Amino acid sequence: MSEETTPIVAAILPSIKDSRDVKNIPVEQLPTLCHEIRKTLVEKVTKCGGHLASNLGVVELTVAIHRVFDSLHDHIIFDVGHQSYVHKMLTGRCDQFDSLRRPGGLSGFPKREESPHDAFGTGHASTSLSAGLGFAQADLLDGKDDFTIVVLGDGAFTGGMIHEALNNCSSDLKLILIINENEMSISKNIGHFAQELAQLRSRPAYLRTKTAVEKILEHIPLIGKPTRRLVSGVKNAVKESLYGSNYFENMGLRYLGPADGNNLSEVETLLRRAKNGNRACVIHLKTVKGKGYEPAMRAPSQYHALPPARTGDTAAQNETTLTFSQTFGQTLTALASKDERLCAITAAMQHGTGLIPFAKAYPNRLFDVGIAEEHAVTFAAGLCAQGYHPVVAIYSTFLQRSYDNILHDVALQKLPVMFCIDRAGLNAADGPTHHGIFDVAFLMHVPGMRIYEPYNTQRLSELLCALQAEGYSSPVAIRYPSGKDDLTLTAHFSPDKRFSLATGSYCDFDPETPPSTLILTYGRICGEAIRAKNQYKSPERVGIVYIEKLFPHEELLEYLDRILRQNHPPKKLIFLEEGILRGGLAMNLSFALQERLAAKMLPDIRTLAIRDSFCVQTENEPIFATARIDAASILYELEH
Amino acid sequence: MSEETTPIVAAILPSIKDSRDVKNIPVEQLPTLCHEIRKTLVEKVTKCGGHLASNLGVVELTVAIHRVFDSLHDHIIFDVGHQSYVHKMLTGRCDQFDSLRRPGGLSGFPKREESPHDAFGTGHASTSLSAGLGFAQADLLDGKDDFTIVVLGDGAFTGGMIHEALNNCSSDLKLILIINENEMSISKNIGHFAQELAQLRSRPAYLRTKTAVEKILEHIPLIGKPTRRLVSGVKNAVKESLYGSNYFENMGLRYLGPADGNNLSEVETLLRRAKNGNRACVIHLKTVKGKGYEPAMRAPSQYHALPPARTGDTAAQNETTLTFSQTFGQTLTALASKDERLCAITAAMQHGTGLIPFAKAYPNRLFDVGIAEEHAVTFAAGLCAQGYHPVVAIYSTFLQRSYDNILHDVALQKLPVMFCIDRAGLNAADGPTHHGIFDVAFLMHVPGMRIYEPYNTQRLSELLCALQAEGYSSPVAIRYPSGKDDLTLTAHFSPDKRFSLATGSYCDFDPETPPSTLILTYGRICGEAIRAKNQYKSPERVGIVYIEKLFPHEELLEYLDRILRQNHPPKKLIFLEEGILRGGLAMNLSFALQERLAAKMLPDIRTLAIRDSFCVQTENEPIFATARIDAASILYELEH
Repeated sequence: MSEETTPIVAAILPSIKDSRDVKNIPVEQLPTLCHEIRKTLVEKVTKCGGHLASNLGVVELTVAIHRVFDSLHDHIIFDVGHQSYVHKMLTGRCDQFDSLRRPGGLSGFPKREESPHDAFGTGHASTSLSAGLGFAQADLLDGKDDFTIVVLGDGAFTGGMIHEALNNCSSDLKLILIINENEMSISKNIGHFAQELAQLRSRPAYLRTKTAVEKILEHIPLIGKPTRRLVSGVKNAVKESLYGSNYFENMGLRYLGPADGNNLSEVETLLRRAKNGNRACVIHLKTVKGKGYEPAMRAPSQYHALPPARTGDTAAQNETTLTFSQTFGQTLTALASKDERLCAITAAMQHGTGLIPFAKAYPNRLFDVGIAEEHAVTFAAGLCAQGYHPVVAIYSTFLQRSYDNILHDVALQKLPVMFCIDRAGLNAADGPTHHGIFDVAFLMHVPGMRIYEPYNTQRLSELLCALQAEGYSSPVAIRYPSGKDDLTLTAHFSPDKRFSLATGSYCDFDPETPPSTLILTYGRICGEAIRAKNQYKSPERVGIVYIEKLFPHEELLEYLDRILRQNHPPKKLIFLEEGILRGGLAMNLSFALQERLAAKMLPDIRTLAIRDSFCVQTENEPIFATARIDAASILYELEH
Repeated sequence: MSEETTPIVAAILPSIKDSRDVKNIPVEQLPTLCHEIRKTLVEKVTKCGGHLASNLGVVELTVAIHRVFDSLHDHIIFDVGHQSYVHKMLTGRCDQFDSLRRPGGLSGFPKREESPHDAFGTGHASTSLSAGLGFAQADLLDGKDDFTIVVLGDGAFTGGMIHEALNNCSSDLKLILIINENEMSISKNIGHFAQELAQLRSRPAYLRTKTAVEKILEHIPLIGKPTRRLVSGVKNAVKESLYGSNYFENMGLRYLGPADGNNLSEVETLLRRAKNGNRACVIHLKTVKGKGYEPAMRAPSQYHALPPARTGDTAAQNETTLTFSQTFGQTLTALASKDERLCAITAAMQHGTGLIPFAKAYPNRLFDVGIAEEHAVTFAAGLCAQGYHPVVAIYSTFLQRSYDNILHDVALQKLPVMFCIDRAGLNAADGPTHHGIFDVAFLMHVPGMRIYEPYNTQRLSELLCALQAEGYSSPVAIRYPSGKDDLTLTAHFSPDKRFSLATGSYCDFDPETPPSTLILTYGRICGEAIRAKNQYKSPERVGIVYIEKLFPHEELLEYLDRILRQNHPPKKLIFLEEGILRGGLAMNLSFALQERLAAKMLPDIRTLAIRDSFCVQTENEPIFATARIDAASILYELEH
């Protein structure tokens, strides 16, 4: 893209460091500023990857917010946060956009550590209003005049937290809730709340009617006092139901809108009215996702999040092999043709989890419940109790929201729900709000849960088929990373080269004559183990065990027990885990070995896992190295 | 109570085994049945403990449900589930009520394992509709005529999950959502949804007005065609806003009510209308909590949940010492007088968490957010970001719902929110939905989290004061059990008898000359360790370490490291934990010792913790014994 378009001659944007600078721009130059922002967004995001369409949609809105408020005193909170790029550009970070989503660079989400202008970090949907109420309540207690501005998309309303927060939103707070409706959150919006908004959108028609009603009511002949009282009552009822009655006003909040969110002066006018109103207020805007960039306006879903690329045309990527998500989706669709009780459930991630083919083939067995991970899991439990075979596909980081539902609704009742956990492991570009590093630790202590991670897409497909054929009778989880196969793993564990140890473990050595050091691992991080082995001076003395069945791991323990009791047992075990240490697989296996074996039989155990850290990318290093789970760290353990 | 009132001569109730029997009772005998149910409830619940007021309120409702539906084909799901006693009585479990909430006895909540009439297990609020949608959706796919009946209180609407589910409730489902409004869920209901229901309740008045409006509109003189069209439009608008427009109807659901939920024939009529309507329907009932039992009607909050007692008068209990909850509440109130930025947040548990004194003293700094644990935590994060000092008081089992908020909103941003976790450990009478056995495991892997458990109420108070004085700069959790001090612990660790090892650990021996076996534990289960030690043949050879600071545990590790490197180190360590094994304290400490010490220096490590189980009470044993963490199990490890 950058080579193909004319270079940006941004005249105004570079001079802006914060809200005050935005306020100082002459009104007639604002369209130029918006144009410069859009040009910069397209250039930087098509280069670095990131969220393009949503940011193009909120250019005018963000400029208007900074014209009316001051992000050093007022608190601007972006729900999900992927639409905060314009805000970042206007608050002194424009020149850092070349490092967007890169190690040590600008985060793709708001981040308190990054700037005082980022009031609250977000990443998961529907949290913004709860946080915003905290900010506004604090200002109320402090008697401050600062405003809290919460910007959220219509999709956020499919999540329960927003309703918990709305239920606690008192009208005396200096809080402005801006609903940025683009009629398409990540996928198309579902459910009743979308309808509710659609009704509000049609209000201008109501308003016209109202005026006419009032005129009529004014001319109704009055026959004596009782009727007069009655009519006056009627007028209030009419007024209330036609003017005042909508979802938010029923909650005691002021409602302004709907308005064109891409019309800067219209948005600014509403923001000033809201500010002067001096109480909690909802502003309802419609914006066009991808506004001002033709390819993104044509296909906003495709331009929601871009991978880093040299061209603006994302369709040009090589698509000859399938991602883990696509493999999951295709396999499940094939299985659904044989099992008519198989259902798929996704929380607003039909596309991301690869379920589009399933949705097309079996629309009545695909349930996209919105950004509602809690409901998704308990709904699956209900289907399961009726003898259906629900498969819940959720990203690892978002499954954290279903923790209690997995325990209380699924596992406690021993309901055989299958969880397909996408985006497992570190997700470098999105950063710590999107890492999938806790699921093994929190699932491993769920009584009765089985956990698997296949080493490539073919094994994922085989595993899905095997489990569905087996007809599992308790909850089961399969996790897999984003992206495609690591060909290093596929080659290393190709059937002719591997040994199957027991159900769900593979090794690259003859189990009858194990080498002196074993590396035990699972997931794509195994690629680092293979690289370390190949770099080691005596690779033949290193064996790699790929653990496909993470839990329960009785068979694996029996195997380890057996080889550690041999005459020439391995002297060193290195556990390698792309996940949190505490409660994870390595800790559980170490503990189990300690319980089984006499202390003198225990080998030297080394553990490389993520230690007490969210893996925030503060340094300019690749993420595996920062977490000390890379080939170099393994090599160090091999050598010392 | 049982001694004071006339014995029950239940003539009808004992003969009822399921819905068919309820249907066969002559209408004129129904009041007698309801009377018998109430008498039985009062007798059994005042004896065994349990939820009285809510069950007294739903007698007619439950009878009506069984008269119209059949719980073997239709699916009755009770939100929270504590109001399912009447349902249990009508489905063949009346004679088991002497064992209510007792080991091996009848559960106080619906339980699939207990009866085919219990469609879905509940315990945590707001899950019922999600599960119900699963049931109804399955029936729709199967083309079945069965109905799903979801019974929930108004309090459930303060929880986000209900809104996630409502957003997915399509009108073609055979689902009946019965809102049992008693204007008081656990504490008084808060927020906007309560107002929404209040508006619906006042509908009869609207209906009267409407008729009058219609009459007036019918007599408006028509002047030409355009006006006529206009008036006709007005009539529709008026109609829509006055008749049809309410929260549920806006969602496409049929709405019936409000009606008197304690009027059996009125309820039955509505249920039949809903059934004949053949589509998703909301029935809005008002019931009187405690109906028919004077003490409970006067003080329903006090009679919400009763402890087992010999008398119906719960006020007669000895209240000379404080519970952990009360100690927390009183201490926090005292601290709030010195720190005006200290806030308390509770999720509908002002009473249960001991926060009533705080609420009275500092009403503007007490936030009861409803049954909204997710919002509670993120709201606290927002307050914290503004420099306030929020303390979130939630029961351990309910904090499971905040897991992602703790990770994503609090810990990732290093916000110093304090979590006060009540009802930690096993809660025998309430059963597995209410055990607090996972919090240590899930908090221990949250980067930057500190965790404490004081051994008595005095230490709780001291710890709260010390932490607040210290001004902690990262998230911190203090957990404590229900009830009052175990005097065994208080005596054993009285300051003159204990040694303080390092910050937050106590031991009952001279750390310079440790005994040959150490028991390391935390929480009230330490009482079992003391009993085991006292029963052991050589108690002087057993030392008990009480770990007050669970995490981080560097100081403790250093101490253990030091004594294990002595000339006469302890030969055996026994970890004792009233919590899940995997990821818990024992596993973390064992692992850490293994990492620090050469294998030959490791002592014999034994671990008693809850292993891969929810601790369902299936056998007739005390719960510590079932989980094998009781004194006898410890004694076995001492002796073998």
